[in-house]
Amino acid sequence: MSHGQEQQLERLTFFSDAVFAIAITLLVIEIHVPDPEGRGDAAWMEALGHLVPHFLGFVLSFVVVGALWAAHHRVFGMLERFDPAIVWRNLALLMSVAFMPFSSALMSTHPTERIPEMFYSLNLFIAGLLQWRLFRTALRAPHVRADVADADIAAMRRRTLALPLMSTLSFALAFWIPGPSNLPLVLMPIVVAWFARGGFRRRATSTASTG
Amino acid sequence: MSHGQEQQLERLTFFSDAVFAIAITLLVIEIHVPDPEGRGDAAWMEALGHLVPHFLGFVLSFVVVGALWAAHHRVFGMLERFDPAIVWRNLALLMSVAFMPFSSALMSTHPTERIPEMFYSLNLFIAGLLQWRLFRTALRAPHVRADVADADIAAMRRRTLALPLMSTLSFALAFWIPGPSNLPLVLMPIVVAWFARGGFRRRATSTASTG
Amino acid sequence: MSHGQEQQLERLTFFSDAVFAIAITLLVIEIHVPDPEGRGDAAWMEALGHLVPHFLGFVLSFVVVGALWAAHHRVFGMLERFDPAIVWRNLALLMSVAFMPFSSALMSTHPTERIPEMFYSLNLFIAGLLQWRLFRTALRAPHVRADVADADIAAMRRRTLALPLMSTLSFALAFWIPGPSNLPLVLMPIVVAWFARGGFRRRATSTASTG
Amino acid sequence: MSHGQEQQLERLTFFSDAVFAIAITLLVIEIHVPDPEGRGDAAWMEALGHLVPHFLGFVLSFVVVGALWAAHHRVFGMLERFDPAIVWRNLALLMSVAFMPFSSALMSTHPTERIPEMFYSLNLFIAGLLQWRLFRTALRAPHVRADVADADIAAMRRRTLALPLMSTLSFALAFWIPGPSNLPLVLMPIVVAWFARGGFRRRATSTASTG
Repeated sequence: MSHGQEQQLERLTFFSDAVFAIAITLLVIEIHVPDPEGRGDAAWMEALGHLVPHFLGFVLSFVVVGALWAAHHRVFGMLERFDPAIVWRNLALLMSVAFMPFSSALMSTHPTERIPEMFYSLNLFIAGLLQWRLFRTALRAPHVRADVADADIAAMRRRTLALPLMSTLSFALAFWIPGPSNLPLVLMPIVVAWFARGGFRRRATSTASTG
Repeated sequence: MSHGQEQQLERLTFFSDAVFAIAITLLVIEIHVPDPEGRGDAAWMEALGHLVPHFLGFVLSFVVVGALWAAHHRVFGMLERFDPAIVWRNLALLMSVAFMPFSSALMSTHPTERIPEMFYSLNLFIAGLLQWRLFRTALRAPHVRADVADADIAAMRRRTLALPLMSTLSFALAFWIPGPSNLPLVLMPIVVAWFARGGFRRRATSTASTG
Repeated sequence: MSHGQEQQLERLTFFSDAVFAIAITLLVIEIHVPDPEGRGDAAWMEALGHLVPHFLGFVLSFVVVGALWAAHHRVFGMLERFDPAIVWRNLALLMSVAFMPFSSALMSTHPTERIPEMFYSLNLFIAGLLQWRLFRTALRAPHVRADVADADIAAMRRRTLALPLMSTLSFALAFWIPGPSNLPLVLMPIVVAWFARGGFRRRATSTASTG
Repeated sequence: MSHGQEQQLERLTFFSDAVFAIAITLLVIEIHVPDPEGRGDAAWMEALGHLVPHFLGFVLSFVVVGALWAAHHRVFGMLERFDPAIVWRNLALLMSVAFMPFSSALMSTHPTERIPEMFYSLNLFIAGLLQWRLFRTALRAPHVRADVADADIAAMRRRTLALPLMSTLSFALAFWIPGPSNLPLVLMPIVVAWFARGGFRRRATSTASTG
């Protein structure tokens, strides 16, 4: 890899990290400090109780954006060559990630309404599609490091289907049963963790065999 | 390149990346969660409908700041020497970029008024000028890597004229026909993409011939 | 260390730095500019006087997040191998850090109420636990650089107990005596500094002996 | 320089860059989009006219934080060894920088009141002192790269006195003549530029003689 190419790839990665980090940290900004009318413990417990959907929304969105970052981190760790074609595909993914603080706040503020719920799922669906599109381009044969096993690339590609799938499920669920429509998204961490653990185990094996 | 010089260039690039990343992610902050009086799907669709100018403004500004970053990324990838003269020229460009969340929110909140429209165009025009000024200094002969073709530098310089041109057009259009004055800016991605694709193709050729 | 592994570790560190940096800088965002009804010095001194709990809260939270970053910085400086198992343990710690701007604002806005006080202590307690859990995994034998002394690792592990301890103390104090319940947290810098100085001294010694 | 030490220094620099970048970009957040009652050009020009102090405050604070970053960038570019003693001195400087968005908004919102003016000057004065303290420790003999000329270090130390001096002047001026008390701060860029240019020229000479 030429020095210039390595630098270009590093800087793209770096910029992406910064956008992921800012989007994930801005999630908290839309949780506003309550100002209960009465004072005392009961008033406070009630006020904080009203914020529970916000806290859950924060955790859910943090895990989703965290998963998107972790996948980005793993895929770009496999790359060796900078391909200019990924610049705008990457920016498109980052745009959908940067939009998450709004979608997340919208859903958290109105947890029983189906339109905000569906809007949130749609944001995640688009992010999932753009991630899939970016990784498909990035993981093309000449860009990947020689020591990365084909099985790892295949596993990564399968993994990328989790988000579009679960967000479609959540979108559909929100349409019919607004209440617990977050369930597929709440299950996301488990699905992602399952893929991740599977992927990591395979990778450890392949690293051991090549190392 | 001495170790110290390389570090100084890297850190300047890094700081710039961070400012670009923050400005691009803060664009979403001015989109506030609506609180429709009535509940139900119709009220929600209307409330989200009112936010459409904000969504479009977010996409447009994200693409413009993204294009400014992508150009910065490409130009600094061509450099080899750190020139102290670029420190403040770079900070000036970053200032105009850091101001974008305000201009973008101003325009999106009042999409049919010509003054906010012109203010937005003016911000982009200044950013375009400062970018042109920075790149002119940065791309001077002794700073550029030996393996960068002269044609690439020339292409980059032409590319830099897109933003001042299109924002002037948009400013003028806003003065006479406030409504669709964003059109030249909406076309920006196409213009930039056209330049970019041309540049990338040339670059791929030159890399192949030198590599 | 393979090139790929080093890169993965670097990028994880980098992403963490960005989240720490954003969380620590967002602490100021919840301090709102006052608008005193009367003008003149007296009105202003009173208005700024009302903000004193916010200023103190900002300093306290800045020091706590700064200490969490400094510890992260030191521990990851000891590592040589990237272990995929730290990805989500690290994200969990970052989640509790990204939540600090809310907890800090909640406590600062209502400095005499015990529930906000206890909420803040709870956030710190969770952050302390997650830090302890991350470091326990990260500092396992095969990941640590050969030139790091066992005494340094042991010192680091002891250090990590400061935050859970002091936040538990603060939580209990807030329950019984809401007023000065911040005291253990105010003492945190001293405790952390004491640990830090001890650690740094030991480290300097070990570096000197290996260098 | 050992690999670990270089990494520690790099990461500290990196974290500082991120905090500088976020603080400088958050400056725009306190400029709120106006909503003039009447529509039409006149109403808009008036509304934007009211924001002029905010725009000027943004530019001034951007330049001051930019200058603090540029100085940090230059000093850390001279370093070779990581000294744990700079960790907290650096965090203290960053705390005063992270506080700037509040001070800047406070001053800009009330441009004719002397208390906000003095508060802003005080913030800058503290930042200046903490910068001076950090650089004094950082630039001690064993930490500086061998190829850095003593004259450069001396120039850097003189440079660091500009901010405490000018902010004291501005503080005093605000006490007696609230109106144009920003003048010394407005002159800051010139003073800093003068120091900077002097420093850069000397540095170019020393680089040429060692290179």
